[in-house]
Amino acid sequence: MEGEGPESDIVISSRVRLARNIAGYHFFAHATADEQAEVLNLVHKNLMATKLKDQLWYLEMNDTTPLERQLLIERHLISKELAEGEGPRAVALTHDETLALMINEEDHLRIQMMAGGLQLKETYQHICLVDDMLEEKMDYAFSPQYGYLTACPTNVGTGIRVSAMLHLPGLKMTGEIEKVFRAAKDMRLAVRGLYGEGSEPIGDFFQLSNQTTLGKTEEEIIDQLVKHAVEPIVAYERLARRKLLEERLTALDDKIYRARGILTHARLISSDETLYMLSYIRLGIHLKRIKNVSIEMMNRLFLLTKPSHLQHLYQEPIFSPKSQLLKGVKVYQFSLRQAVK
Amino acid sequence: MEGEGPESDIVISSRVRLARNIAGYHFFAHATADEQAEVLNLVHKNLMATKLKDQLWYLEMNDTTPLERQLLIERHLISKELAEGEGPRAVALTHDETLALMINEEDHLRIQMMAGGLQLKETYQHICLVDDMLEEKMDYAFSPQYGYLTACPTNVGTGIRVSAMLHLPGLKMTGEIEKVFRAAKDMRLAVRGLYGEGSEPIGDFFQLSNQTTLGKTEEEIIDQLVKHAVEPIVAYERLARRKLLEERLTALDDKIYRARGILTHARLISSDETLYMLSYIRLGIHLKRIKNVSIEMMNRLFLLTKPSHLQHLYQEPIFSPKSQLLKGVKVYQFSLRQAVK
Repeated sequence: MEGEGPESDIVISSRVRLARNIAGYHFFAHATADEQAEVLNLVHKNLMATKLKDQLWYLEMNDTTPLERQLLIERHLISKELAEGEGPRAVALTHDETLALMINEEDHLRIQMMAGGLQLKETYQHICLVDDMLEEKMDYAFSPQYGYLTACPTNVGTGIRVSAMLHLPGLKMTGEIEKVFRAAKDMRLAVRGLYGEGSEPIGDFFQLSNQTTLGKTEEEIIDQLVKHAVEPIVAYERLARRKLLEERLTALDDKIYRARGILTHARLISSDETLYMLSYIRLGIHLKRIKNVSIEMMNRLFLLTKPSHLQHLYQEPIFSPKSQLLKGVKVYQFSLRQAVK
Repeated sequence: MEGEGPESDIVISSRVRLARNIAGYHFFAHATADEQAEVLNLVHKNLMATKLKDQLWYLEMNDTTPLERQLLIERHLISKELAEGEGPRAVALTHDETLALMINEEDHLRIQMMAGGLQLKETYQHICLVDDMLEEKMDYAFSPQYGYLTACPTNVGTGIRVSAMLHLPGLKMTGEIEKVFRAAKDMRLAVRGLYGEGSEPIGDFFQLSNQTTLGKTEEEIIDQLVKHAVEPIVAYERLARRKLLEERLTALDDKIYRARGILTHARLISSDETLYMLSYIRLGIHLKRIKNVSIEMMNRLFLLTKPSHLQHLYQEPIFSPKSQLLKGVKVYQFSLRQAVK
């Protein structure tokens, strides 16, 4: 939210995710309802036996409304699969929302850690502490030959997915973005939209992540993504922005100020269009073409203008009375028009 | 400019044009250069012998620059044909720009009279006075059987073209505009853009005019256009606007305020987009959704944002030193952004 962290003018966030399963139980899709419930209880009990317990907020999916699950998706705290799945499944979150543990998604356990800016190595170090803490309590399904065993073969080995969310409006405007993506794909990296697998890139936000998890160490995977992809792309984007400032300032300002004009004047606007417009405002702030809007406010608007967040802000009765979410997830009340004006 | 006249919320202007030729001379396209010059001198001399002479400003096309001719086109004072033609040709204008007489366009003489709002009958009465004044001095080519003889058979007979410029954003938004145009075409009326023949309708401005000039009196032609086309369309447009206000106010405001946002924020904008945006501002003023912009200012912006007017405002040296136009045509200096904000 604060928009801090290294290279945060271009790298929105860093994310590391580990896929783990409990030894002696069928993978979720093949387990009976009883076995699924047993896994859920086991993981929950062990989680609450770690020193993380006071920081964790535990939410069983079957106790939430569809809108609440959508809110969690919009905050990247749970996946679409967990939200839409069936059977006993849950998420445990730290209050600062940097750590999320999904239980009974595709794997028994998916641990996710997020940080602002480019902090993949640091994030990996942090997630290892959590992973180790849990491994002390539980037996993970692990093969000396293949590594961590996972429900989908694409995750076998390290079970790691490392991703960086990049904001690349400069490369988009200079028309160089496709070249960058082709290079990324040649390196077997995946380029996706804001919501990972299956989501279209909108508003010049792109998620870059590894696709291979086998045959390399976690450190090598991270190193390759950072050194050979994220860092060069950041340098290209910065170059593109400098070129725009020096050679196409009026065209750049036109995009930025039209976005401001639309955000402050529209009476009907879709979430997608808002994202595109906020993307230009964000660029404008970083290039000092817009001076009276803070990055923190911009980041909040990115979140608050999503469909479920808006629904939550303006139609509170839609929540079920037993909802804990109102207390748990901080939702900031903002007027879009006042905020951007 | 003042945006006055009957029904001026919908009818921008009324225009009547008469095509006349001098008896005893070949039509312009078939005349020798000497004959063309003779006609020009004859018409000029006779014009200056009328009591109009003190009000008239006479401009020979060969003494003007392409930019100056373009300015005259944008003000609807000369046709593209006159601007781009060759040979001796001229326009005589009254200082208030309501009367324009083109010499050696397609016909020897084309007399045009304009007025704000729906004033076709009044405009016809005025143009008759001018026509009679000239007919006293010159022999028009006239056949008792066919009426006035003209270079193009479509003008033979009365030689009259009557047109009304309509602003129909309401019917456009409600999707009923095509229906209206089909009805107009069934009545053998022509629907064109802002610059008549061959121009595409942009910004919801449509020119409606008669296509037949033969077999009816001038009064019948005007009566048919007004009673059976302009008046019903004005009523439909008013109904559409009322419907938008009552049933789709947010969608209406969205269009109007987005237009305002773009006009006040864009750094690059085409004349066409400007016209579309100003069209919504004009609608907003008439529906009292925008209160601090006057119709007069809006009408000036319509003109001043045209390519040649802008070029004139910002690149004065482009004019030839012998140009009379700077004195003759009033050009109002305005900042678009200040004016619309």
